[in-house]
Amino acid sequence: MRKTLGLFANVRPCKSYHPYVKTKHEHMNLVIIRENEEDLYSGIEHQQTDEVVQCLKLISRPGCEKIVRYAFEYARQNGRKRVTCFTKDNIMKQTDGMFRQVFNEIAPEYPDIANDHYIIDIGSARLADTPEDFDVIVTLNLYGDVISDIAAQIAGSIGLGGSSNIGEECAMFEAIHGSAPDIAGKNIANPSGLIQAGVMMMNHLGQNDVAEKIENAWLKTLENGIHTGDIYKPELSSEKVGTQEFADAVIARLGQKPEKLAAVTYKQTEGIRLTPYKRRHIADKTLKGMDAFIDWNGTDPNELGDVLSSITTKHLKLTMITNRGIKVWPNGFKETFCTDHWRCRFSTENGHVVEKMELIDVLTHADQLGMDVIKTENLYEFDGKPAYSLGQGQ
Amino acid sequence: MRKTLGLFANVRPCKSYHPYVKTKHEHMNLVIIRENEEDLYSGIEHQQTDEVVQCLKLISRPGCEKIVRYAFEYARQNGRKRVTCFTKDNIMKQTDGMFRQVFNEIAPEYPDIANDHYIIDIGSARLADTPEDFDVIVTLNLYGDVISDIAAQIAGSIGLGGSSNIGEECAMFEAIHGSAPDIAGKNIANPSGLIQAGVMMMNHLGQNDVAEKIENAWLKTLENGIHTGDIYKPELSSEKVGTQEFADAVIARLGQKPEKLAAVTYKQTEGIRLTPYKRRHIADKTLKGMDAFIDWNGTDPNELGDVLSSITTKHLKLTMITNRGIKVWPNGFKETFCTDHWRCRFSTENGHVVEKMELIDVLTHADQLGMDVIKTENLYEFDGKPAYSLGQGQ
Repeated sequence: MRKTLGLFANVRPCKSYHPYVKTKHEHMNLVIIRENEEDLYSGIEHQQTDEVVQCLKLISRPGCEKIVRYAFEYARQNGRKRVTCFTKDNIMKQTDGMFRQVFNEIAPEYPDIANDHYIIDIGSARLADTPEDFDVIVTLNLYGDVISDIAAQIAGSIGLGGSSNIGEECAMFEAIHGSAPDIAGKNIANPSGLIQAGVMMMNHLGQNDVAEKIENAWLKTLENGIHTGDIYKPELSSEKVGTQEFADAVIARLGQKPEKLAAVTYKQTEGIRLTPYKRRHIADKTLKGMDAFIDWNGTDPNELGDVLSSITTKHLKLTMITNRGIKVWPNGFKETFCTDHWRCRFSTENGHVVEKMELIDVLTHADQLGMDVIKTENLYEFDGKPAYSLGQGQ
Repeated sequence: MRKTLGLFANVRPCKSYHPYVKTKHEHMNLVIIRENEEDLYSGIEHQQTDEVVQCLKLISRPGCEKIVRYAFEYARQNGRKRVTCFTKDNIMKQTDGMFRQVFNEIAPEYPDIANDHYIIDIGSARLADTPEDFDVIVTLNLYGDVISDIAAQIAGSIGLGGSSNIGEECAMFEAIHGSAPDIAGKNIANPSGLIQAGVMMMNHLGQNDVAEKIENAWLKTLENGIHTGDIYKPELSSEKVGTQEFADAVIARLGQKPEKLAAVTYKQTEGIRLTPYKRRHIADKTLKGMDAFIDWNGTDPNELGDVLSSITTKHLKLTMITNRGIKVWPNGFKETFCTDHWRCRFSTENGHVVEKMELIDVLTHADQLGMDVIKTENLYEFDGKPAYSLGQGQ
């Protein structure tokens, strides 16, 4: 549903409520803004050889622009000071590289908000160890999935959190916990997650005064020790209450502010206005070749190289074979373990533009040679720059 | 180098040395065994439209078998009790699904070692919060990258850790910290990471008595308060020493055991013996169609559907169009945001086997219609079971 309705942003505030909720991290108060539609979650998987399965990671420029812009807009509206980007662009130079590049393009439009970047492994390690160092984090779908669970868990407040799913035309607000059907209707559930979701909705719509009033009343209830069973602790709580009584206690405190926990203030806004994505200048795209992936049961790459070298077109010839990304022809290492999944690059080395029919000729010729081409990836230059990776070891 | 030499396993023990090394997790003692050659790290990326970039996640059966088997062998050799598998197989049913399936196949061969599985997001959250609950974790390359940094960081011992890279024919042992050229030759570096790497090497080779003696002497040195500058604390340390003096202190304690920190015991083994991967029965593979990915600047999927529906072969016709994995034809939702990257599925619905030349006919016909096919993925059944994902919403 998220993707069908274009809900591109998942927003997950993670805050600790020490000492009322147990945590090893007393001062954390961060928000994770996770891209919600792309990445490996497109669910496009193919098995085409006995040994190898593939999943496509797809990252789009509009997807990156929308989520990064939303993160900065959210930070500004919610009085946050810094947006931190997490990617793995040292390895995935084109996909994660695009995400980071878009982040670097958009950040200067928000001079009032600081910005920085971490590689996902080091960033996650810092987040897990000293979450109080972070403010707003924006990241790709898979990384966001992992770090938003880490942050909620170490805050100790999974049962109390709200989240939102934001699109250009629709938005959806929910508690981060599940529907807990086993306790439905028993008046024992903690409604805090839904209250938090309501606060997020009010802020999103620009009813910031309402959001502020509800959240402060809720914080006051928490520090007064009026607790549902899930967070009740004799040494800290004053009263164990049910769902309805907890809600009544919050309502009774509307207009009050917490004294031990920090009160929230939200400045009045018109809600977050999202500028719809606009397609940019279309780059000049030229075809330079094709990676043909072959299912082959042999073990010696030179044998495969010999067969495929016989395939040539006006501009194309075999220039490289890799196995799991590692160059194995020409001049591979015998220690490299090879699966039955071979990427065979046919490319032009002389700057010529390749015709589509040349690719079809390669496929036809390969079929005649009994070579089992199972997938293809065309090689392009955009505005004269190669837009495909080299082989590792090339 | 790791991939060229077939070093498929990265092994990263993460242990806290409370109170000598600062940590919020006093009792953690786990080992992360990370697949080291596959996943998104194959570095195969292509941009083929203005808006969309792709990275291939490749997972192989031999890759899964080797790392899972190594994890259990390691656990057995090192006296570990449980191996936990981390995947995201609820989303990536074929790639991560294969990893988990292989784990489930191999685990029963080790009845002396317990086993379980976590989805990566929840597992990482648990790891970050209560690392003392884990023993050995085996996982895919990207997840392993992230969680091994988390574990080292929260243990507080990045500066003290060793790691190994294990292959069938070679192995490499190193400190997890970098080479720190700024302090080279100054006699101030903490050599503990290299000492730990040495301990791992001795264990790997089956010189377990030597490994035990060195590690216990090192633990004794640590608890005697003989510390290099990076971990020196006046309230806990007795002496601040240089690299050479620290090494001398360890050597002087060979044969001694720690009293406050737990001493290690390694049982005598012949080292880890790895059975080389053997290719299994080759499944019966039948071609059922092709996903042709098209670069198209339009916005109405029905328009694209109309054009492509005119392409038919003996067994193939257009059956689905998706954009970023979401079905947009037939019967899409107008709210779905579409990029210029369209997956157009040509498939047979009547159980026939498709000929390779039919795929080439589709490509030729598409070219004649001015449709810009930028990549293809063949659709196969293995032993009669479809080995490709459906569209989301299909």
